[in-house]
Amino acid sequence: MRSHIPAGFTTIDGELGIAGRAASYWVHEAGDTPLFVYDRALIAARIAAVRAALPSEVALHYALKANPLPALVEWMGGQVDGLDVASGGELALALASGMQPRDIGFAGPGKRDDELRAAIAAGVLINVESAGELERIAALGGRVVALRLNPSFELKGSGMRMGGRASPFGIDVADAPAVVARAAELGVRVTGLHVYAGSQALSAAAVIESQAATLVMAAELVAATGVQLETLNLGGGFGIPYFTNDLPLDLAAVGEALSASLATLPAGLRDTRIIVELGRYLVGEAGVYLARVVDRKVSRGTEFIVTDGGLHHQLAASGNFGTVIRRNYPIANASHFGADAVMTADVVGCLCTPLDRLGERVALPDTQVGDLIAIFMAGAYGASASPAAFLGHPPARELLV
Amino acid sequence: MRSHIPAGFTTIDGELGIAGRAASYWVHEAGDTPLFVYDRALIAARIAAVRAALPSEVALHYALKANPLPALVEWMGGQVDGLDVASGGELALALASGMQPRDIGFAGPGKRDDELRAAIAAGVLINVESAGELERIAALGGRVVALRLNPSFELKGSGMRMGGRASPFGIDVADAPAVVARAAELGVRVTGLHVYAGSQALSAAAVIESQAATLVMAAELVAATGVQLETLNLGGGFGIPYFTNDLPLDLAAVGEALSASLATLPAGLRDTRIIVELGRYLVGEAGVYLARVVDRKVSRGTEFIVTDGGLHHQLAASGNFGTVIRRNYPIANASHFGADAVMTADVVGCLCTPLDRLGERVALPDTQVGDLIAIFMAGAYGASASPAAFLGHPPARELLV
Repeated sequence: MRSHIPAGFTTIDGELGIAGRAASYWVHEAGDTPLFVYDRALIAARIAAVRAALPSEVALHYALKANPLPALVEWMGGQVDGLDVASGGELALALASGMQPRDIGFAGPGKRDDELRAAIAAGVLINVESAGELERIAALGGRVVALRLNPSFELKGSGMRMGGRASPFGIDVADAPAVVARAAELGVRVTGLHVYAGSQALSAAAVIESQAATLVMAAELVAATGVQLETLNLGGGFGIPYFTNDLPLDLAAVGEALSASLATLPAGLRDTRIIVELGRYLVGEAGVYLARVVDRKVSRGTEFIVTDGGLHHQLAASGNFGTVIRRNYPIANASHFGADAVMTADVVGCLCTPLDRLGERVALPDTQVGDLIAIFMAGAYGASASPAAFLGHPPARELLV
Repeated sequence: MRSHIPAGFTTIDGELGIAGRAASYWVHEAGDTPLFVYDRALIAARIAAVRAALPSEVALHYALKANPLPALVEWMGGQVDGLDVASGGELALALASGMQPRDIGFAGPGKRDDELRAAIAAGVLINVESAGELERIAALGGRVVALRLNPSFELKGSGMRMGGRASPFGIDVADAPAVVARAAELGVRVTGLHVYAGSQALSAAAVIESQAATLVMAAELVAATGVQLETLNLGGGFGIPYFTNDLPLDLAAVGEALSASLATLPAGLRDTRIIVELGRYLVGEAGVYLARVVDRKVSRGTEFIVTDGGLHHQLAASGNFGTVIRRNYPIANASHFGADAVMTADVVGCLCTPLDRLGERVALPDTQVGDLIAIFMAGAYGASASPAAFLGHPPARELLV
């Protein structure tokens, strides 16, 4: 069985090593568990790998939704070419990072007028999600937009498909020419397109097909309407291997195919800045969630390791967010990292609900009260995507190191 | 098809009426949407109904986990006989309500030492979840406890079964005599038992069977160990009818059966205070979540109503928390309440994720941008049990009226 703990972690004095220090060091530094540690060097290495694989002319954006920790967003602002936001709150964070407003994209199906006003005032690029939103933007004084399209294809094999079907996201591609025409009537310039066909795809073939289809769709819209595109955001959807036997995305294959596509771009797209927007793929594997063992018990023959963490910080790892079948994220005893397994236990959180499972039938070394448990793949959709207030426990601490 | 909007709501000037005022009044009062409104009178009526149905000697506790809004907890402190908490945070809220510490119970599988210390200092009743936890409590100076038992039966037909299987909750009933003996050695007095066999059961027969089995189990433990029980917490598990065709729990039947059981209690339990602990059943149907329509659009023939609310406030209603098959909570246009349906739409939240569905194929009157959408059954496991920070939108407002 392929071990699925992500690369970049070490063993230090018998403990899990994160960014050159033992796990217990970071807990001491943060003051207590539960704790998320995000390793900046691993994120930087991932960004470098993406840049090396993709054609040099492709701009790399970070989607804040994956992890909006302010310190992380500020640092990311210096690492990538743009930021993508999904709310007024994320917009404020992105602006605070120092990123140029023109390199910030704002998507989301339910933007309120106050969010649109803030975006227009800041000069960021709003991805228009519907004909009705275009009217509101124009009425509020917006003069430049991108159109988010709901494509006629989907990102195959993705964890969450967002194209090829009826959707609250974007404008059906068939309706796009009419919206472009209406924008002209309203005095609103359409300078970009945005497509997000799905997320968490591990198949390079699926990502390649989706990117190629997006380029064809954009070229057709340009040909049909004469719209001049300054930017074309191809979305992201690059997946990470959460589960045993998942294989990592073949990034080189994606990059080679995109290079080939860009080399044969139709004339109407040759001056267009091509953007790839990644969230989870940049940060997901660089984060570890550390919780402390509070109790160890046997019930009806099953060993339970009870921690002070739980689904209030790591909803996705508990299997309760966007998944039907619960599977374990990579998990280990961080206090005895790499030690031989001598027991099998269910690792649970401290919440008084049977939903709070962090790992089922986990092979562990001898695990005692006080040990640290590490759950990997915790850099994305962790602290910010979990019901932090549920049952009144303290929020998780977060360190960017 | 049975309409499943809960009782107690009216129509005022064509709008949904909550506690004698139109929905728009409460939104104006709160300042904005999204908004939870909890109707105190409906909660009081539910408490009165429970008290009327249950034998008068049964004590009624409120479990804060269902809704820990401080104003609600404070008010509840004056309505019920005790409070049950699941964390140090909930403990602080319960104590602030003025409830006597001896009438506060503290359960939870992963209590940290600092939580145990606070509970011991306050004099609340700790429900011991394991042999190891008993040792920690004794070491920290605890001298009186209740034992939480993992029963050999489960609450049948419940949304979440918590008994009859290996569990992180409570002490296996077979191990209880040994734990009672160990408590005596440690100088810790066992004065209570606590059992929670499941939750969200709509079948009176299942609740009756579970309560009866709990009484038998307690009597057996008393007979076997000679422990003198001051309190026996039978748990709760009373469900509410979230979905079309759900039938409400037959409360009268539950009360009659419990009366019969209490009339024939074995001698060892005749001086024991019997507690029923309810959360969702007291508050769930008394709350409404109000969100405003931000956009209306058609995609590939499907009508979408996009609101400023979403799963960041109402995770359970989106079908992403503890459910495998998504079904609609009762939902309506609160601005045209009771008006004839003329359209069918998917109602979604504002989050940039396909998980954010609030109602699928909902029959609605003509619904426009600016209208208020009401999602009922929002009094329990709403604001506090949802990922409020996800995607950076503002938290929901909450009003107890």
